[in-house]
Amino acid sequence: MKLTDYFLPVLKESPADAEIASHKLMLRAGMLSQSSSGIYSWLPLGLRVLKKIENIVREEQDAAGVNEILMPTIQPADIWKESGRYDDYGKEMLRIKDRQGREMLFGPTNEEQVTDIFRRTVRSYKELPSLLYHIQWKFRDELRPRFGIMRGREFLMKDAYSFDLDKESSRASYNKFFVSYLKTFERLGLKAIPMAADTGPIGGDMSHEFVIISDTGESDIYFDNRILNLTNIDENIQYNSDLSTIVESYQDLYSVADDKFSEDDFNLKVPEEFRKHTKGIEVGHIFNFATKYSEPMKANVLNSNGKTVPVHMGSYGIGISRLVGAIIESSHDENGIIWPNSVTPFDIGLINLKIKDFDAVKICEKIYLELKDTGIDILYDNKDDSPGAKFSRMDLIGLPIQIICGKNSVKDGTVEIKYRNSGDVKLINISDVVNFIKNK
Amino acid sequence: MKLTDYFLPVLKESPADAEIASHKLMLRAGMLSQSSSGIYSWLPLGLRVLKKIENIVREEQDAAGVNEILMPTIQPADIWKESGRYDDYGKEMLRIKDRQGREMLFGPTNEEQVTDIFRRTVRSYKELPSLLYHIQWKFRDELRPRFGIMRGREFLMKDAYSFDLDKESSRASYNKFFVSYLKTFERLGLKAIPMAADTGPIGGDMSHEFVIISDTGESDIYFDNRILNLTNIDENIQYNSDLSTIVESYQDLYSVADDKFSEDDFNLKVPEEFRKHTKGIEVGHIFNFATKYSEPMKANVLNSNGKTVPVHMGSYGIGISRLVGAIIESSHDENGIIWPNSVTPFDIGLINLKIKDFDAVKICEKIYLELKDTGIDILYDNKDDSPGAKFSRMDLIGLPIQIICGKNSVKDGTVEIKYRNSGDVKLINISDVVNFIKNK
Repeated sequence: MKLTDYFLPVLKESPADAEIASHKLMLRAGMLSQSSSGIYSWLPLGLRVLKKIENIVREEQDAAGVNEILMPTIQPADIWKESGRYDDYGKEMLRIKDRQGREMLFGPTNEEQVTDIFRRTVRSYKELPSLLYHIQWKFRDELRPRFGIMRGREFLMKDAYSFDLDKESSRASYNKFFVSYLKTFERLGLKAIPMAADTGPIGGDMSHEFVIISDTGESDIYFDNRILNLTNIDENIQYNSDLSTIVESYQDLYSVADDKFSEDDFNLKVPEEFRKHTKGIEVGHIFNFATKYSEPMKANVLNSNGKTVPVHMGSYGIGISRLVGAIIESSHDENGIIWPNSVTPFDIGLINLKIKDFDAVKICEKIYLELKDTGIDILYDNKDDSPGAKFSRMDLIGLPIQIICGKNSVKDGTVEIKYRNSGDVKLINISDVVNFIKNK
Repeated sequence: MKLTDYFLPVLKESPADAEIASHKLMLRAGMLSQSSSGIYSWLPLGLRVLKKIENIVREEQDAAGVNEILMPTIQPADIWKESGRYDDYGKEMLRIKDRQGREMLFGPTNEEQVTDIFRRTVRSYKELPSLLYHIQWKFRDELRPRFGIMRGREFLMKDAYSFDLDKESSRASYNKFFVSYLKTFERLGLKAIPMAADTGPIGGDMSHEFVIISDTGESDIYFDNRILNLTNIDENIQYNSDLSTIVESYQDLYSVADDKFSEDDFNLKVPEEFRKHTKGIEVGHIFNFATKYSEPMKANVLNSNGKTVPVHMGSYGIGISRLVGAIIESSHDENGIIWPNSVTPFDIGLINLKIKDFDAVKICEKIYLELKDTGIDILYDNKDDSPGAKFSRMDLIGLPIQIICGKNSVKDGTVEIKYRNSGDVKLINISDVVNFIKNK
């Protein structure tokens, strides 16, 4: 993509009302534009990151054997009355009357909607377990939206739902999501800690939050530091194998959010040298709630004895739009964002410092086209701006590798390769650039 | 994908309230589940088609140099009051009050929202033309939703917007979308006819609907039959070249929807042998409305003389969810759907008629894995059902090619290849199957 063809409205100054780094940087880097309180438009650079995250989440759900569906944003109030949550949910739920006066709502979550789909279509234990997910915009009418998309009102969430015959198989589905979440966050370049958590308005008797460490997080978290040293999930993990050993290796180590914290427990279960208390950002949350929705909504199947039984359910959320902010919170410096390779909007930023020099343009066009042809996403800064403006813009938007072409490129046949993360710079012959980048 | 792992709740009977073929078939083929009047959940098979269409639309927008953004579903009423449309829009607009009592709405279209983004970020004629699109769920509170997703309330639309310095360059942007729409619909396997149209609540002085011929369409269309013989758009068309010759070749031939129809004009401009009057389904609509929004909303830029001028705008919609229905309307038979190759949910359906026969299972597993490895999307019916149930289910869901493996496969080493479109069947040696399919 050439910058002259790209809609990238970067700002020189941080907007006054942005409090935390990710909010400031997303506005400055032209990733977002505010529509109203807690509601944003995603501009091209931001949308690219959002989609990269969405696709990684999707790939891992598919790998775990979860079927993708897409439920609507607007739900009928009736099903929420059936489950008993319509009155419970309070003012965070955006309630709507349509032109016929029917009560509707903008879904904050989808337990009722998916249970309705299930009960209309599944009849027998032979079709279980059934795992469904969707990636859709949700709305929670926060009293005080803040921190940009980290605590917005309209947000993108992946929510999955499991339907099982009994408690034991339901636990196996829970473990599947537990492990797939660890793997998903690893791929996003994040170390997420699973924490025993309260279940809140979703309900149920087992729940884990996945939290990443961050000074700007809203939750206090307490954990056994050794949880950070557990080995990564195998890239080729078989989700139909028994995953309980992996899950237990995490659950055996103390880690809780503040709503479950007890000082006595912490001191008792964690040797002093491993006790850790920090702030964290919640990026995922999983629940097992047995028959809380299936009983009132009559989501039943016939078991192998021909008896009608309510299914055991769980739900599993990942905050996709929030993750964009969470990744920036954990990866930036005073000059801007530093994207992990897996979610960077472009792999390479190519800067031409001499856009009026015919030979420099020729060199850059060649590098640009050759890298593009190899399938590398490249943003080519071909704008007529000062070197200072170009350098600071490219640092701000945080692409992992910069290729800098200036007057020395024409003279010596070299370009500079700059790593955004370390700031390291090396000189490379122009003829070697494509191979160098391809083999990274 | 193995059918035992896939959520595909097909129905034997058509639901009583479905009136047209696409609605019946989408429900029967397990593509959709109704949530409330005019609102649907997309099940895995339906979602695959929706995404294929979405991606083709996206690729063609990208090819035409349009930048993708994503605006929220919930908009503030303020910007609609600025443009003057808040009162005009009537009951089709879903109006909402949030917990603070602020007036909001679920966007039925995005002229105001995108104009607001533009005026916050763009200052100079040097940044024009600026072309933006997004693919997002919209809501129109139809009085009588019907025909399933063809006339639903929550629907997926691609809407694009152009910002130009003056009328002439704005016309060039209009032509760009005109041509890219013809190409997009061609790729979807549809012959869409551009028709001079009224502008309705969007406004402006130039507008074309893109309509496909269908007996179940809601519009009467009148056109010169020779428009169907115009040559296809070049696959490698350069969108920055002058496209007016192509656009004029269409506009020179009479074609209008009923709101613009005049019997006298039709008779005068079209020789009798070429006069055609049919029903049609609108799948796209483009508008040029000059400064209708930019003037009241003060979306101005500085021109080359340093003078502040309002930008000239256009908007360009494609009904993505509606296209799923429109394609089925134009491609089905009494047994079910017949997908065009470009949007089929899977390329191949593999039927094992002998799932208890060890050798038949071995043959099918081998074909399944080998085809999957070559990147072909394959649905493997490994369920324990009767041959009749398997045949009718596979015909119903409409995959272009079926591979049928039965007792002869084990005996003779052959499988049947059945083409869903023609019904033709041919025998192929098992060892040739993968090459045969790959080279199709």
